[in-house]
Parts: sequence; structure tokens; C-alpha cells
Amino acid sequence: MEFSSKLLENAVYEVSQLPGIGKRTALRLVLHLLKQPNEQTTRLTSALVNLKSNIKFCKNCHNISDVILCEICANPKRDQTTVCVVEDIRDVMAIENTDQFKGLYHVLGGKISPMEGVGPQDLTIASLIGKVKQGEIKELIFALSSTMEGDTTNFYIFKQLEGTEIKTSTIARGIAIGDELEYADEVTLGRSILNRIPFENSLKA
Amino acid sequence: MEFSSKLLENAVYEVSQLPGIGKRTALRLVLHLLKQPNEQTTRLTSALVNLKSNIKFCKNCHNISDVILCEICANPKRDQTTVCVVEDIRDVMAIENTDQFKGLYHVLGGKISPMEGVGPQDLTIASLIGKVKQGEIKELIFALSSTMEGDTTNFYIFKQLEGTEIKTSTIARGIAIGDELEYADEVTLGRSILNRIPFENSLKA
Repeated sequence: MEFSSKLLENAVYEVSQLPGIGKRTALRLVLHLLKQPNEQTTRLTSALVNLKSNIKFCKNCHNISDVILCEICANPKRDQTTVCVVEDIRDVMAIENTDQFKGLYHVLGGKISPMEGVGPQDLTIASLIGKVKQGEIKELIFALSSTMEGDTTNFYIFKQLEGTEIKTSTIARGIAIGDELEYADEVTLGRSILNRIPFENSLKA
Repeated sequence: MEFSSKLLENAVYEVSQLPGIGKRTALRLVLHLLKQPNEQTTRLTSALVNLKSNIKFCKNCHNISDVILCEICANPKRDQTTVCVVEDIRDVMAIENTDQFKGLYHVLGGKISPMEGVGPQDLTIASLIGKVKQGEIKELIFALSSTMEGDTTNFYIFKQLEGTEIKTSTIARGIAIGDELEYADEVTLGRSILNRIPFENSLKA
């Protein structure tokens, strides 16, 4: 792509550094901003700079928060003894949307992924183990994505917990509600048979 | 979507104001920026602010440029008598890539679109008519998209040129090279038959 303007080229380059945004999309976004009033660019850039410089993370669960202790951790009605381990804030939002979980979260900030150079020390695993060793948590629910990295991370944490008496579980894998059996992949279908549940339990939700 | 942080919510909102970017994508982009070093956000935001405040448009063709007269208009080797009328800088880049056009451009900055509130006065049509009336341009090539808005814009400019002796043409519409006839839409196929060209000419490119 040849540009008639260095300023434009530079802006397109920086936007195209975002994940999933190629040069063409970046050019479209930048040209859109150029057509809008100056205020839109100012609002966009200052929102990003503001977020980046003033962001805080909850000291207990490491979720993004504007205060030291996030709303969920600070809520006395939530079950402090059950902790759901998730990758990032999007998973917290997704689980909160279900209204089915009343415990606390622990946000790891990613998954162990040697390919991307993410090791256990880059995540908040040490802080999780520390919390468990204080003895107030009774159950950890692993809710990471069902990928190699997710499974590795689950297993790493599980090994670190050896010697403690904590109960661990993972969220159920199976056929999604509304899905047709014939289109399900074999591994999921196989697991859903192995991990079948008493029929009465399926009536509860 | 419920956010645990106002700063995050605000950043996601501003990013989702860009065309084609929904709330989920915006959240993904913002969380990505959060994980990167501060410099990436600084580079991105300053590139955008810089572009927006220092952008110049070529005084002749209205293309984006860092100087008063863009490289194309300032190039004495280009044919000053043939002007290709396009919508925006992306079309200039696309046509330049073909290496088939040696004239100048005129960038309208959009198409007449009553639905989006874009009238002739929002485009650089007056400047184009002015240039034509100076009498140095011999041919105008309309290269707008083949949509209702594009056709309206072509026709509006064509009417404004009544009384001048300028030659006007539009780029050829037809079956794309490499395309199978059976999959072509009827209108395009019909036009390509009506506007057939001498076979010898098709051997040139």
C-alpha cells in the first residue's frame, strides 16, 4: 500500500497493530475519523489514554476495577468460600450474565502459553495459591477455555494445590442447549456421555 | 454489557463508535491495548491526534497530502489534461496500483447521498467545475462506485458541465477478468454485451 501522506501512513500503521485489524480496515477506520468532527478523535484518544494510565485491578480478584476492592469482592452477600478461576474480565462478565454464580472470581490475566511466551509467573497464580493457603476458600471452579492452554493452566494450578484440602471442579463440557446431536463434535459428545448427570438434576435450572 | 469499571466502559464505548466495530470487538481491542506496554497506546493515540490536527489536502485534487500540492499533481510527467474523478483516497490508491493511468485525479470526498445527508455542497464538485471552466482539462473520467449514489453524482456533475466542451467517460463495467459468465449478474452481463469492444483492443492490456 502506497500512501500520499506520511501522517496517514503512520496512523494506519498504528491502528493495524491492533489484533484482527488489517491495513485495509485500518485505512477505513482512519478515513472515517478524518471525516468526523475533531471531538470524536479527542474523545477516543483521551478515553484510551485515561484507561491506560488510571486503570486499577481489584487487589483480591485482579479484575479490572475503578476501586481497590471490586464490587463483587466487596459484596457481603456473595459466597466468599467459592472462587471461580477465569482468564479475563470478559469471562467474569459472561458468567455474571448467567446469574447462576454467587461466589467470587479470580482473574488469571491469561493462560499459560509457551507459544506466546506466557508462563505461570506472568499470571496471578501465586496470588491464587496464597489465598487458598489462608484456608478460607472451600472450592475452586476452573472456568478456563477448553483448549490446550486452558487445560495446561488448570493442571498447573491443580498441581500447585497438592497438600491442601481444597475441592476443585471444572465447569461442565457437553452439548450446548438447543444444539442437535448430529452436529456435535465427537469429543464433546463423548465427554457428555461419560459425564452424564442424574435426570432429576437436569430439571433444576 | 455491564462493566466493573467506568474507565473501561468509556474506552469501549468510544472504540465501538468506529464503523463496523461492535461492543464485543471494542472490548477485545481495548483489553489487548491494556496488556501491551504503555508506548503502544501512546503511539496509537498520538498518530491519530497528529493526523487529525496536521492533515492537509492537495489544493488541486483534494487528495490527502502532507504538502500543499500532492506528489501526483506536482509531477510534470503526468498528463494534466485528463482527470479521473474518484470518491476518496482509497480509489486513488487502487487506480495508482494498476499503473494504467497517467493523468491527474480529483477527489470528491464522497458521493451525493440524500439518505446520509450528503449534498453536492459537501463535496468538492464546485472546485472541479471551476477547474474545467479554466479550459485546460480535455477529458473527465468518472470512476465512482456503480451504485445509485455513484450514478447520481456522475449525473449531477455531467449536468453542471453542460455548455462546456469537455469529453466525459466512465470506467468500463463488465465481467471481471477470471470470472465465469454463468455466475455474473444479469445487469453486468447485459452491459458488457451492449458496451462490447473491438477484439483487437482486448489484446492490448
